[in-house]
Amino acid sequence: MILIGERINAGFSDVKQALQEKDREEIENLAERQADSGADYLDINMGAVSKDPDDMIWLIEIVQDTVDTPISIDSQNPDIVEPALEACNGDPLINSTTAQDEKLEKLIPLAVDHDASIIGITSGEEGAPQDVNGRLEYAAKIFTSANEYGLEVDNLFIDPVAMPLKFMQEQASNLLEAINQLSNISDPPPHISLGISNMSSDASEKSLINRTFLVMAMAVGLDAAICNVFDEKLINSVATAEMILNEEIYNDSFIETYRMG
Amino acid sequence: MILIGERINAGFSDVKQALQEKDREEIENLAERQADSGADYLDINMGAVSKDPDDMIWLIEIVQDTVDTPISIDSQNPDIVEPALEACNGDPLINSTTAQDEKLEKLIPLAVDHDASIIGITSGEEGAPQDVNGRLEYAAKIFTSANEYGLEVDNLFIDPVAMPLKFMQEQASNLLEAINQLSNISDPPPHISLGISNMSSDASEKSLINRTFLVMAMAVGLDAAICNVFDEKLINSVATAEMILNEEIYNDSFIETYRMG
Repeated sequence: MILIGERINAGFSDVKQALQEKDREEIENLAERQADSGADYLDINMGAVSKDPDDMIWLIEIVQDTVDTPISIDSQNPDIVEPALEACNGDPLINSTTAQDEKLEKLIPLAVDHDASIIGITSGEEGAPQDVNGRLEYAAKIFTSANEYGLEVDNLFIDPVAMPLKFMQEQASNLLEAINQLSNISDPPPHISLGISNMSSDASEKSLINRTFLVMAMAVGLDAAICNVFDEKLINSVATAEMILNEEIYNDSFIETYRMG
Repeated sequence: MILIGERINAGFSDVKQALQEKDREEIENLAERQADSGADYLDINMGAVSKDPDDMIWLIEIVQDTVDTPISIDSQNPDIVEPALEACNGDPLINSTTAQDEKLEKLIPLAVDHDASIIGITSGEEGAPQDVNGRLEYAAKIFTSANEYGLEVDNLFIDPVAMPLKFMQEQASNLLEAINQLSNISDPPPHISLGISNMSSDASEKSLINRTFLVMAMAVGLDAAICNVFDEKLINSVATAEMILNEEIYNDSFIETYRMG
């Protein structure tokens, strides 16, 4: 399971303040703690706080000075993504493109040119569809585009869009079915990823909803998630599901083993 | 989700003692608490303590005097199952037949004659196979036999056999795949059931393994489980998974709502 730590996001007040006040220590701390919690990528999202590529580079450089975990550049703006890619040391992840032509034709070539991976979210001119077929159509468009530009399938993540259970309950089972079908789109398939925290927006029992949905999605083919890696119960559930799927070898201390990486 | 409470089983020392000493109160207590915890059936298993049908009837009558929850008769011996069926008030469940001819031809007609449901476990002359195809072959044999004897598909439960993760790790993903395929065996499909506690035999983190596996299995079509309904975390996970699968309507108090039935 590829875990993308969601916490360096200026939608959170501590990150917003750190970005505004250029407080390195707060960002270092979040980078270190997420890496220790098992994050495979660290997502960096400036939210509405800044549109300045230099601010994104400032964040990337702090993270890279602190940990070796690759960066997930959370922007769909090529004017931010391109300089951010150039600032990255390892092989980063672009989060994300939609299925819209003008995004695909700018962002996918950027990924190819920088040996980066990219998340394609199943959203287009009409927004993000709730049904299975709408998700699959946009996924097929992204997959075809990635293929045409020469992106390796292992560098493509399809995100079929988690929506709040509280407000769009019927889409959750559609999402599971879409993941199941996406896992057969090619052999090997692209990665399939979700922003798990969206599932529990404004709900009670957020952690229970997130971890229950996450392992159900893993059962049908999800292999990546943008999530709160500080949620220990979520990580324990992921460790257990990986063992059930025979991706980690059973031992009685499997939770500790998983946490130690 | 159909929950079959596993606790009235003489493999547990309190039930063994209650059966040996004819202690009604212990059995009443277990029946009442399991019904309150959301059990849809109460399994009754005499284990190795007794082969006397009168003991089974003694247990059934205590349970029926205490709660309205239907009985799951946990025996493959027709000499116990038949008198037990006659003692049952509601529509009971026979737990279980294997795919062996001599069991199918005795137990399925008993189910049909008594308007009972029956669990068919995917085990035969060669034991219980770990792979997907072996499970599906025995399932098909049970399904065909049930059909020939005129059992309604809604009265058939197929149990593809949960085995200990600790000792047979690779079978867990086979089991998920078998459930996925079984859910397409007919339209509507039979119920698909498992003895969930087997999954965590001799393991650490039993409850975590049981509830993680259970919701993963629900994602691919499991709709019944023999389980420990006293495990609150398991029941909370089931409530959440049912909401994700759009089988219960979301509300912020969904756990309390589920528990109140």
